[in-house]
Amino acid sequence: MRLGRLNHVGIAVSAMAEARARYAALFGEGAVGEPIDLPAQGVTACFVRAGDSEIELIAPLGTESPLAAFLQKAPAGGQHHLCFEVESVAEAVAALRAEGKRVLGEPRPGAHGTLVAFVHPKDMGGVLTEIMEAPDAHG
Amino acid sequence: MRLGRLNHVGIAVSAMAEARARYAALFGEGAVGEPIDLPAQGVTACFVRAGDSEIELIAPLGTESPLAAFLQKAPAGGQHHLCFEVESVAEAVAALRAEGKRVLGEPRPGAHGTLVAFVHPKDMGGVLTEIMEAPDAHG
Repeated sequence: MRLGRLNHVGIAVSAMAEARARYAALFGEGAVGEPIDLPAQGVTACFVRAGDSEIELIAPLGTESPLAAFLQKAPAGGQHHLCFEVESVAEAVAALRAEGKRVLGEPRPGAHGTLVAFVHPKDMGGVLTEIMEAPDAHG
Repeated sequence: MRLGRLNHVGIAVSAMAEARARYAALFGEGAVGEPIDLPAQGVTACFVRAGDSEIELIAPLGTESPLAAFLQKAPAGGQHHLCFEVESVAEAVAALRAEGKRVLGEPRPGAHGTLVAFVHPKDMGGVLTEIMEAPDAHG
């Protein structure tokens, strides 16, 4: 099992409209995508292109968003997770668990429609780590 | 002024040797570079390739490292900064200051030998932001 390309950096924001305007000023209007509600994950996501990688702005959605605690500690927002591509999330999850790393829940479809899973920051040097299958890995 | 490609993600680590071994297990031995002491910045840096972008592992160097306070709050380490490429750091610094954003100190050579500068996280949605001139921008 190998982690591959840095697909995106997840950044928590408290207000999506304000954040999109700020990123449009920094990266250009054309770099900022449309917000997508992901009710199953409790977030609204919006991708910003920054070269080969992207920034994923995530704002709380619903009353039980996993971002609520993060934003309570850091109301201005901040770096939330890193997402790396893997060939197979199922194989990566099995390998990580075999090493004693805590994978949070079971693989599920992420913002790009491919399978994703999250690994506990305490087992990844303090970095909440998402693994995802690359959209083009499905041919 | 536009921010461009995500050059790297800076991750604070408390022990470089342990971190390099962990990243070699995740990304492969060949992806992990050699550590470089940067006394002027108070860190030892080590780059890990993850596709087009890199991870910059940074560990404290010397007694007055700017990482000391970060690692006191997060002893396991964690996400420290994002670095985006710009055409001209001098022009970007002037533009950011004109918008009232706090640039920390003056541009100086970074780990890749090109000019870099840091922008205060309070003016960047909670993200400590490094801007750097791409190595190939100098022809």
